[in-house]
Amino acid sequence: MEIKVLQNILEANDQAAAEIRGRLAAESVTAVNLISAPGAGKTSLLERVIPCLGACLRVAVLEGDIATTRDAERIDRLGVPVVQLLTGGGCHLEAALVGKGLAELPLEKLDLVFIENVGNIACPAEFDLGEAAKIGILSVTEGSDKPAKYPLLFHEVAALILNKVDLLPYTDFDLDLFDRDFRALNSQAPVFPVSCRTGEGIAHFARWLEARVGDAAKTVGGPGLVVGRW
Amino acid sequence: MEIKVLQNILEANDQAAAEIRGRLAAESVTAVNLISAPGAGKTSLLERVIPCLGACLRVAVLEGDIATTRDAERIDRLGVPVVQLLTGGGCHLEAALVGKGLAELPLEKLDLVFIENVGNIACPAEFDLGEAAKIGILSVTEGSDKPAKYPLLFHEVAALILNKVDLLPYTDFDLDLFDRDFRALNSQAPVFPVSCRTGEGIAHFARWLEARVGDAAKTVGGPGLVVGRW
Repeated sequence: MEIKVLQNILEANDQAAAEIRGRLAAESVTAVNLISAPGAGKTSLLERVIPCLGACLRVAVLEGDIATTRDAERIDRLGVPVVQLLTGGGCHLEAALVGKGLAELPLEKLDLVFIENVGNIACPAEFDLGEAAKIGILSVTEGSDKPAKYPLLFHEVAALILNKVDLLPYTDFDLDLFDRDFRALNSQAPVFPVSCRTGEGIAHFARWLEARVGDAAKTVGGPGLVVGRW
Repeated sequence: MEIKVLQNILEANDQAAAEIRGRLAAESVTAVNLISAPGAGKTSLLERVIPCLGACLRVAVLEGDIATTRDAERIDRLGVPVVQLLTGGGCHLEAALVGKGLAELPLEKLDLVFIENVGNIACPAEFDLGEAAKIGILSVTEGSDKPAKYPLLFHEVAALILNKVDLLPYTDFDLDLFDRDFRALNSQAPVFPVSCRTGEGIAHFARWLEARVGDAAKTVGGPGLVVGRW
């Protein structure tokens, strides 16, 4: 009984996600779903990468949190449209709430929407939000064993940001172990070592992201090269 | 409909937790439920604090994970009984699984059972495991804004470990902001600044924990001074 209902929740979510994917494709908007543990640096990454993206790319953010509007206030200071999604206790975003958030954005004037999920590397990976790709963030202070211990997210990501590399000298993070465990789950996704504190590595990730959104995004007249999953 | 079923899940969990609480009281065993984000240092804290506890205290660990037995292997090296609880995808421990784990332990020969939850600061706080207390761990590398953003856990904890203080000089962690936000949610719980890497602060937490388990634990003939919630 419980399993059946949980399946129904996932089915309803998948349906809402499919609708979102259709809306985004119709508007040539690429959405990425940012997932990490609390404090791994989702908002900090956005604060760094958004100013580093090509000026022709029009960006907005859906900011998911259990409580407070603190992250949305940080994004607002970047001067991009931001909508706060409050789950009110929920440990992950679901497509229905993301759909409501998208309705608040001028999709026809956007190329890229970042969906910042609730800080959690267990549940959010299970819920399709209609995004083109999930991007994971692991900070080195969390330890190199996290891919093996939370396999679904690391299996699902189209790219992995390895954040806080400025703290590598002060931690026991084992890059070889991390790489071995991560590659056992995901042979394709690039890994971007960055420090959102110093800015190291951000430009590399920004260039990759721009290429995925497509340099033919509708700001230059055509649809995005890559809309849908990649 | 969905809400009703989720309530039923919580009710079933509460019933299983109440049974566990009864079993533990009957055996004079104190259980603590360790909750933190992934990589905040739950296993590292156990590796540090267990050898630091009074030799007369008999300790065991229930090790909760989504996947792998890596943490249980680390605990096993301490020479204390350990049972791995694998949720197989589940983002938190529930009382039914904890009950099965406890059945594998010689409760009559134990004083203290650590239940290490899945790394997640959203969902685990919602599920009573029959513990005497929840103990939270926040690492300074996660940022000082976490209490306000994940309020339920920080409201629930009987003590908070502030881990990785050796990294404070390299982070932007704002102790004043953290203290203000945490105290708005929880006026009682002591905060123990520690470094599981250097061992700093561990003894202080160990002494506090021993006092809560009770120096009249059954190793010296009587029931624990504090069994049940504190």
